[in-house]
Amino acid sequence: MRATLMYGAGDVRVENVPDSVIKQPTDALVRVTSSCICGSDLHPYHSMSRDSGPARMGHEFIGIVEGTGSEVSTVRKGDLVVAPFAISCGTCVFCREGLYTSCLHGGFWDNEPLEGGQAEAVRVPFADGTLVKLNVAEDSALMPSLLTLSDVFGTGYHAAVQGGVNERTSVSVIGDGAVGLLAVLSAKRLGAEQIILMGRHQARTDLGREFGATDVVAERGEEGITKVRELTGGHGTHVVLEAVGHMPAYEQAFGIVRPGGTISRVGVPQYEDAPIGFGSLFGGNITLTGGPAPVRAYIEELMPDILNGTIEPGKVFDTTTDLDGVPEGYQAMDERKSLKVLIRP
Amino acid sequence: MRATLMYGAGDVRVENVPDSVIKQPTDALVRVTSSCICGSDLHPYHSMSRDSGPARMGHEFIGIVEGTGSEVSTVRKGDLVVAPFAISCGTCVFCREGLYTSCLHGGFWDNEPLEGGQAEAVRVPFADGTLVKLNVAEDSALMPSLLTLSDVFGTGYHAAVQGGVNERTSVSVIGDGAVGLLAVLSAKRLGAEQIILMGRHQARTDLGREFGATDVVAERGEEGITKVRELTGGHGTHVVLEAVGHMPAYEQAFGIVRPGGTISRVGVPQYEDAPIGFGSLFGGNITLTGGPAPVRAYIEELMPDILNGTIEPGKVFDTTTDLDGVPEGYQAMDERKSLKVLIRP
Repeated sequence: MRATLMYGAGDVRVENVPDSVIKQPTDALVRVTSSCICGSDLHPYHSMSRDSGPARMGHEFIGIVEGTGSEVSTVRKGDLVVAPFAISCGTCVFCREGLYTSCLHGGFWDNEPLEGGQAEAVRVPFADGTLVKLNVAEDSALMPSLLTLSDVFGTGYHAAVQGGVNERTSVSVIGDGAVGLLAVLSAKRLGAEQIILMGRHQARTDLGREFGATDVVAERGEEGITKVRELTGGHGTHVVLEAVGHMPAYEQAFGIVRPGGTISRVGVPQYEDAPIGFGSLFGGNITLTGGPAPVRAYIEELMPDILNGTIEPGKVFDTTTDLDGVPEGYQAMDERKSLKVLIRP
Repeated sequence: MRATLMYGAGDVRVENVPDSVIKQPTDALVRVTSSCICGSDLHPYHSMSRDSGPARMGHEFIGIVEGTGSEVSTVRKGDLVVAPFAISCGTCVFCREGLYTSCLHGGFWDNEPLEGGQAEAVRVPFADGTLVKLNVAEDSALMPSLLTLSDVFGTGYHAAVQGGVNERTSVSVIGDGAVGLLAVLSAKRLGAEQIILMGRHQARTDLGREFGATDVVAERGEEGITKVRELTGGHGTHVVLEAVGHMPAYEQAFGIVRPGGTISRVGVPQYEDAPIGFGSLFGGNITLTGGPAPVRAYIEELMPDILNGTIEPGKVFDTTTDLDGVPEGYQAMDERKSLKVLIRP
C-alpha cells in the first residue's frame, strides 16, 4: 500500500510500504477514505532531523473498516468511522473521565511508527475505544466537516471549553490557522459575544468572521496588544485561545488577557520554558490551561450540529488532493497558500 | 511613631519615623494593635539590595481607627478593623468582581513607601474599599485567628478555591509554612478527603495534620514525587496547592499533579521563566492558576467559622513579640525557628 513518509525537514514522500494488517485482537483495519494534513505536521516539516526519520505521517482520518480483531465489538467490516488523533482504550480511568489523551494504554500516532493516516490504510489499535461510527454515506457532502471531528474542530472546541468560554466572556483567538478558526466557531457556539481574531491572512480572517469573529486584529506584538486592549475597554479579554504554539503567540496571549482571565493553549508548544512569574501570569491571577484535545470526548456532542447543517467546520479545507499531491500539500500549507489540505487517497 | 524598616538583606530595624497622618479624604488612620511578619517578607530579607532600601515593612494588621477622611463612610473612629494585604478602592470593575488585587486604583503596600503594618500606626488609603470592621473586643482571644484573614488564611483559601478543591478532589499542599498549613485547612473546609502535606518540619506538619492533612511527605524532589504517586494510585493528586514560590516547589508541583489536574500557586514566584511545555503542563492538560489572593473577597465568608470557633487558623502564630522584637522575629522565621510571628506594637 502507499503511505506518506517524512524523511526530514521539508522532505515528504509518498512511497510503497508493507500493507497494514491486524495484529492485536483489539485492532481494526481501516481503509482511509479521507485524511488531511495538520498544522502540527508543519512543526517537524520545519525542524525534523534526518536521523529521526523516516516517519509515517497523519493522525486525522475517516475510513471504512476492512476487518477487526476478535475482541472488537463496537465497529465492524463495512462501517464508516472517524478516528480521533489520539488512540484510547476507552476503559482506563482517564478514558472514563473523558481525558482520552492521557489514556494509560493508548497514545499518539507517533508511537505507532508503522502506521499513519496519510495512507491508503491504517491499523487502528483499541478500535472500540478509539473509533466512532458515522451514520452517513461514504460520499456524503458532509465528509469534510465530519473529518474535522478527528482533530481541528475538537481541538478548537477543547480550547474554548477549557478556557471557560460562555455568554459572559469576551474571547481573543490567536492564530488564523484551521484550529484558530474553529476555536472562533467554538467560542461562538458557546455563546461568546465578542470574539477577536488575531490573524493577518485575509481569506482566513474572512472565514473567521463567517464563523463568528466580531473583530479582526492583523497587528502583532505590542501593536496587536494595544489594538486588543482598545477593543476591550483597556483590559483585554476574559479568555485567550492560543492556537499557534510558538513563543510570540504565548507572549501575545498574556499581553491581551484580562486580569483574572484564562489563557487556553491548544497549539503544541514549540518551547518548554516561558514566562509565568509575577509580571506575566501570577500578578494578574491569570489561569493557563489547555493541552492535547481529547477530541474523542467531543465527537458525539459536536456531530449533530454538523449533520443538521447548523455549522460547517469543513470550510477550513480549501484544497483537496490525492496521495500523490501530499508533498505539494505540505509545501502549500507551509507557504500559507493552503489553509488545510484534504486528502482523498 | 515607631515603625519597621528593612535596609537590605538581613538588616531589619525598628526606628522612629514621622507619624502617619490622613492625607486624602478616602484615608483612615489606624493604630495597629496586631500585626505580623509574612513568609513573603523573607524574600526581600534574603535578596534586597541596599540601594533600594530602606523600605517600610508589613502588610497584615488589625487596629483601631483613630480618624477618617471626609469621604470615608463604612468605618469610623474607635472601630476595630482588619486590613487585607492589598489596598482596594471597592468600586472599580475588578473590585466589583471580587478581584481586589487587580484594583485599578489601589495596589500593594510596597507602593506606599511611607506606610507599613509593622508599625504603631498606618494611613490606609481607600478605607471604605479596604478595611473590614470586626465586631469583637480588642482583647478577644480570637485576635490571632482574625489576623490571619489579612493574608495567610485568605491566601491559603484562594489557592484552594482557584484550584477547584471539592469533595471529589485529592489535594497536595507544597510547603509547611503558614500559608501551606492554612491551604490544608482550606482544602479540608472545601471537602477534600485526601490532603497530602509536603513538608519536613515536624511541629509544622503536626499542625498540618490537625488542620486536616491525611498524609505527610517529608521527602523532596524525585523522592517526594514518587512518594506522592504511591499515595495516589500512581497518578498524583487532582489539585496541587503551591505555597512556597521557589522553582523547586513548582517543579515538585508538576511532578505530582494528576493528568487533567490543576496547580494553584500562591507562593510569590521567585522566578519568571519556568517549564510549561509538552513535558510539564501541556501534555497532561494541566491547568496552572493562582496569584495574589484577593483576600478582601474571602473575609466575610471565612469570619463566621472563626467567630463560632469551628476553625482556629491563628494556631499558625507560634511567637508573639512587640515592635522591639521584630528584627529577631525576622531572624527566627528565616531560621525556621518560628512558624509565624505575631506583633503587638
